Order: sequence, then C-alpha cells, then structure tokens
Amino acid sequence: MLEVAGRKVPDALEEIIDPTKSALLLWDLEYAIAPNAFNYNEIAPKLKVIADHAREVGVPVFYSQQMHYDLRTQEGDVWARVRAKRGGGAGDMKIPAGKKGHDIVDELAPQPGDVVFQKRRPDGFIGTDFDLMLRQRGIKTILIGGVATEGGVEGTARSGRNLGYYTVVLKDCVGSRNREFHDTALKLMAGAYFDVTTSDDVARIWTPES
Amino acid sequence: MLEVAGRKVPDALEEIIDPTKSALLLWDLEYAIAPNAFNYNEIAPKLKVIADHAREVGVPVFYSQQMHYDLRTQEGDVWARVRAKRGGGAGDMKIPAGKKGHDIVDELAPQPGDVVFQKRRPDGFIGTDFDLMLRQRGIKTILIGGVATEGGVEGTARSGRNLGYYTVVLKDCVGSRNREFHDTALKLMAGAYFDVTTSDDVARIWTPES
Amino acid sequence: MLEVAGRKVPDALEEIIDPTKSALLLWDLEYAIAPNAFNYNEIAPKLKVIADHAREVGVPVFYSQQMHYDLRTQEGDVWARVRAKRGGGAGDMKIPAGKKGHDIVDELAPQPGDVVFQKRRPDGFIGTDFDLMLRQRGIKTILIGGVATEGGVEGTARSGRNLGYYTVVLKDCVGSRNREFHDTALKLMAGAYFDVTTSDDVARIWTPES
Amino acid sequence: MLEVAGRKVPDALEEIIDPTKSALLLWDLEYAIAPNAFNYNEIAPKLKVIADHAREVGVPVFYSQQMHYDLRTQEGDVWARVRAKRGGGAGDMKIPAGKKGHDIVDELAPQPGDVVFQKRRPDGFIGTDFDLMLRQRGIKTILIGGVATEGGVEGTARSGRNLGYYTVVLKDCVGSRNREFHDTALKLMAGAYFDVTTSDDVARIWTPES
Repeated sequence: MLEVAGRKVPDALEEIIDPTKSALLLWDLEYAIAPNAFNYNEIAPKLKVIADHAREVGVPVFYSQQMHYDLRTQEGDVWARVRAKRGGGAGDMKIPAGKKGHDIVDELAPQPGDVVFQKRRPDGFIGTDFDLMLRQRGIKTILIGGVATEGGVEGTARSGRNLGYYTVVLKDCVGSRNREFHDTALKLMAGAYFDVTTSDDVARIWTPES
Repeated sequence: MLEVAGRKVPDALEEIIDPTKSALLLWDLEYAIAPNAFNYNEIAPKLKVIADHAREVGVPVFYSQQMHYDLRTQEGDVWARVRAKRGGGAGDMKIPAGKKGHDIVDELAPQPGDVVFQKRRPDGFIGTDFDLMLRQRGIKTILIGGVATEGGVEGTARSGRNLGYYTVVLKDCVGSRNREFHDTALKLMAGAYFDVTTSDDVARIWTPES
Repeated sequence: MLEVAGRKVPDALEEIIDPTKSALLLWDLEYAIAPNAFNYNEIAPKLKVIADHAREVGVPVFYSQQMHYDLRTQEGDVWARVRAKRGGGAGDMKIPAGKKGHDIVDELAPQPGDVVFQKRRPDGFIGTDFDLMLRQRGIKTILIGGVATEGGVEGTARSGRNLGYYTVVLKDCVGSRNREFHDTALKLMAGAYFDVTTSDDVARIWTPES
Repeated sequence: MLEVAGRKVPDALEEIIDPTKSALLLWDLEYAIAPNAFNYNEIAPKLKVIADHAREVGVPVFYSQQMHYDLRTQEGDVWARVRAKRGGGAGDMKIPAGKKGHDIVDELAPQPGDVVFQKRRPDGFIGTDFDLMLRQRGIKTILIGGVATEGGVEGTARSGRNLGYYTVVLKDCVGSRNREFHDTALKLMAGAYFDVTTSDDVARIWTPES
C-alpha cells in the first residue's frame, strides 16, 4: 500500500491484480493481425498460459475483435483514409485455408465463458460495451495482452486508466509489426506509470502456495 | 483527395484544415505544466502565433485546464497513485508570484471568444464537454499544440481520431519534460498516420493569397 | 428557419429531415418485444412503409437488437433485478416456431444495406457503436419508431438530443405494452420540444413533387 | 435480497442505500429553475433535511448547475431551438437582487465538502465528470432530488441506471413547473422499476437505532 495524502492506496502488483476484481483483455488476436507481430512466436505461448491461468482462478477473459464493414458505405472519411494508408499490408497475410482474417487464431481460441466483443477503433472503450461489462462484474483492474502494443493495447490502457481502472500491460504478451514502436510504447507506458510487467509475475501471484 | 473504395476522402492538409470546420486545442498551458517542457522557449512563441492566426481566420480556440481537487477525498486510487509517483516534480516549478499553478501562462492567455474547459485526465474527451462543444460547432478537424506531447496531446489525438475527427498534431508547438518521450510520441503518431505537421504549414494554408 | 440570438436555426420539419442528413432508427422489433405492443397491428404496416421509403430516398435504416447473455454471469445486479421484476411476461410471448425471441419480426426484417446493432440498455447510445456510425455518415437527425415508446424510444430520443441530434419521434410508428405509458411518454416528449410527428408527414416531405 | 438466476441481488431499500456506497444528487437548484416548481415550497425543506442527513452519515452531496454560454456562438442548433421554444418563461422568474439565475438558491446552498458540477444537458452523465467522480468514490447508488422531475431528474436517473447505478428518485424532493408532467414522470419511473421513494424512508434507514 502506498500512502497518499493520508490514505492507503493499492500499489504492489499483488494488491492490484486480486483475481476477484481483475479481468484479462486479449487484444486483436485475429489471423489478419496477430501473426504479423514480429514476436508472435514468443508471445503466443505466453498468452495461452496466462489465459488458461486466468480462467482457472476465475478472472474473466475478454477478446476484442475488429468489426467488419464496407469502407464505402459504413466508414467515415477519417478511418477510411487511415486504412487506405496502412495499405497493402493485408495482402501479405498468410491466413490458413478456411479461415477468415477476423477469426481469432486457433491456438488462442476463446473458451466457454470468455467474452468476445466487437470494436471499430484501437481503443476497447470507444463504441463498445466493454466498460458496461467490466462495471457490472465489479472489475477494478485490466490486464492486457495482444497486438499491437502501440496501437490498441496502448490505446485501451490509456482509456482504461482514464476511466479509473488499474491497467497492467503484460510486456511478454504484447507485440507489433514494428519492433521499434513496440519497444517505444512499452517504454512510454512504463514512464507514464502504467504497470508494465510480465505474465510470469502475474502467474506467481495467481498461484496460491501449496 | 484520396480515392478509397470508390469515394473521395479529404487527404491533403489544405483539405483537412478548412477554417470553417477546424478548431485549435491548446493543451495544458498552465504554469505548473507548460514551462517545464524542455522546449518551452521554442514552442511558446509558435503557439502564440498560431493561436492569433486561428482567431483571425475564425477557428475557435480551446484551452484545456487541469481541474483542482483534493487527492484525499476527490480522487480515486488509480490517479492518486499516478500523481504520487510523478511526485516531487511539482516542487521544482517556478511559478511567478501571485500566480497559481493552474493559471494559463500569461504570454499565451486565453482571449475573448476562446473557451477554457476543465479536465481531470490526459485526454480531452473523458469527463468533459469538449466533444459536445466541437459537435455543435460542426468541427471536423482538431489541431493540437501544448504539453505534454506523449501525455495529453497524444491521448487527446488518439481519442479525437477514434471519435471521427481529423487530428493534426503541430510538432513545433508541442513539448514535454522528457525529450525522448516527446520525440518518441511524435514518431509513433506519424507512424500511425496521424497528421503531424508544423504550424508554419498550417499558417500558409490559412493565409489567403493576396 | 427560426431566428435565435441573431442566427438562423432549422425549425420546420422539412428543414430537419433532409434525407442526406437523416437516419431512421427502428427500435426493438424483436419477436420477444414488438408484437406485445397494444398497438402492434397498427404500427407494423406504418413501420414497413416508412422504412421502405427511407431506403428509397437513401436514408440509412438502423435496427437495435437486444443483446443476449446469461443473467448469472454476464449481467450486473441493477439490471438482473430490473429483468426479474419485469418478470414472467416473457412467458406469455407467442413466438413463431423456429424463431427466437431476439429475431427481428419477419414482416419488418432488415434489408441489404440496413445496419443491425446490439444493445444492452433502453438507450441506443450506451455501450454501442451507434453514435460512431451516425457521426461518420454525417447524420444530423434521427427519426425513431419501434417499441417501447416510454422505454428505448424515449431513452434514445433523450440521449440523441443531448448529444446534439435533431430527434423526431414517429408517433404512429411507436408502441408499448402499456397504453397509458405510451400516451404519457408521447405527451411528455412533445411538451419537452422533441419533434413528435407522423410517418405520413415525413413521407410527404420525402416524396418529391412530380 | 432478491434471488435471480441463482444469485443474490440487493433489492430492499436498506440494501441499496448503504451510506458507504451512495451519493445524493441535487439537480438544478438554481434561482432560474428550482423556485419555479409548482411544489417548491414543499420540496425545499425536505431537500434541506435529506442533504444535511446525507452529510452527517458521510454520503457525498453533488449539485448540478446549468453552464452558461452564449447561444449565438457556443450552442448548437438543436439546443438553441429548444431554448428558444421554452422561451419567455425565463422572464417570469423572480430572482433575488444581487443573485444570478444560475446561483444555487441560498436556502439549499452547497456546504464545504459538497461538489458542484457544470452541465449543459438534462442528463448529469453527458458532457460532465460526474461518472468519473462517482466511480472513483466507489459509489453504487445515486439518490436524486431537484427540478425538473420529468427533465434532468428522469434523464439522469435513466442514464445512471443504464450505466449500472442503482437509482433512487426521492418523490417528495423533486418538482417541476408542470404538475402533470411531474406526476406522469414519477408514475412512469415507478412503472419501469426505478426505486421511487420518500426522503423519510431514506432518513429512517440512515438513522442508526440508538
């Protein structure tokens, strides 16, 4: 506990990630996005372990999923332009036969009891029911993994904290197409006093001593 | 204009910053914050020029101002902790006699017709009436200057774009205590297809040829 | 046009429901909800006509749909209680074989190009992407029909206007289980200067003279 | 406690208005608004008693206050029109010399520790930091009194519940210019399973037995 202006404030990781008040958010693990991360092969197994661990200790698991729509009629100028600039990248994606780009990758597929919510923006709180779902479960802390670190992960971490959630970024569970932006975003978030830690540290706290 | 899926989308700076649909946001130019930027002496005169220019061409000028409240009773755990960690820095501030930390610096003081709004978070759209004010004026584009680049400037730019505003970051009008974070945030925003440009480029467009 | 403090403000219905800036919202036309309205047989054909008319003149048509989830694990105390109190009513519903309660009624089924969005609350703006979709289409006016008048219709009308949309309630296209609440809500909205009008009046304006 | 789908949900008034998790909201008690209520003389003393009681038992007291701005330049078409239609009424107001219309009435003036927040709309959650303040205090229940019953009181009650707050309307502490709308709104809210009760019932629960 930290003492701030005469009152006690949760400060240590174990005070913050109490399983009864925490949720795990897995950001954009779709075929079209996640496997393009430079470090996908490192983070995928870590994500699997922490997600299973969360389910075991009763921490709800949320997945974001990019909504699909027609740029011509259902998307405004600002985002039609961003997507056009981001460009051809999509053409490079290797998507398994029978899978669509917005399916969650098989190896990290949602399990019964998990919640998958649709979103349009690199921020889980804009145009979604994520905040409603967290509030009604009494969640105080959001742990975040997924892709991209400097995109939806950082965007959701910022908005989550702005709304009053403790926000923990799992640095060994986040990735990006761009290694520099990934490193930069982690450094920036740590510098701004977000909790940036590893899934191993979380696992240790969530595992009761036997 | 950019052609996206068969339709025309504003793309060039002059298409985006039409004075009849733009607003200028000056972020956190309080004594307690702005003068601590490593580059304050460079950005202050630039900010003055672009703000005057905006007023001249009818672009509304908004100032954010950090709300003041008692950490003990009016601030939640998450932000009480952030503020405590950010720490002693406040003690270093040189605030002119008779001024309070949350006053806007004299040299960039709001002018009649400008709007000053209070905010609690490093995001102008959370817990404020900024979005309402922009909507009712028909604003489509927000130009942002102020302090800190990687904090409220980037936070507001992200949320503004997420809500559907074109967002232009004035790179010669933003600053930070931390030069590395400042550089990093500008690079990251440019890499994510925000419009990152100079106030001189804006000024050229807002100045009608004679 | 109304003159307010020296400026012109759209005031007449034809100034407000310009098809290029309007959207039609059809609220909760699911089997579990709409057919229970006391006046369903009167409003259903009117809704069909105005929806077809909207599509013809290029006004986008949105349907709300109640999201389905498990009360035990996915709903907070406040709404679990409301639903329990509203109670057995659901047992009374006559739902056609093969249909589920949350399907939109066949006779008013969404057409290609329409948008169906999920919601949890009797307010289309809370926990949804409805506002994002309206903004990016440049919508200024929302016309509303559906069920229930005093519930989601009024709730969405209030929030829509609070966000700055002109809000037109189609009084011959809205209904409720409870006739008194229906009448009361219409009277209250008219008294609060919402635009409460008929679909026939809208149709006349949307039909160009030949 | 109510049993819903196998779990216990707070249901009785004493379970809902626990002082450690409740807040009292006093809506629009400005000179320009409150004294125009048909029942002002009845509700004013009740409001004073319940506000004092709240302060005594540690329930935070919030006041909304209508923001003042220039209709010509700072208000959008939709609300400029509503205000124009509501019209001349303002001319009828009897405002004590030296007072301004947006001052809170002296007899119900905010006390040290109370929070006054500015708002633009008849909904305390739109364009304000009210939700942030409630969240960071761990508030679960909002008790509402003030003017007008069918306006900001009902609007805030609706949005509060939509966001997941228990919402208690104090029927002997709310009023309106229009008696019919007042009665109607109370009936409608009770019918929609809002908690509509008296300040006396609240007082009994907040008074510990001696």
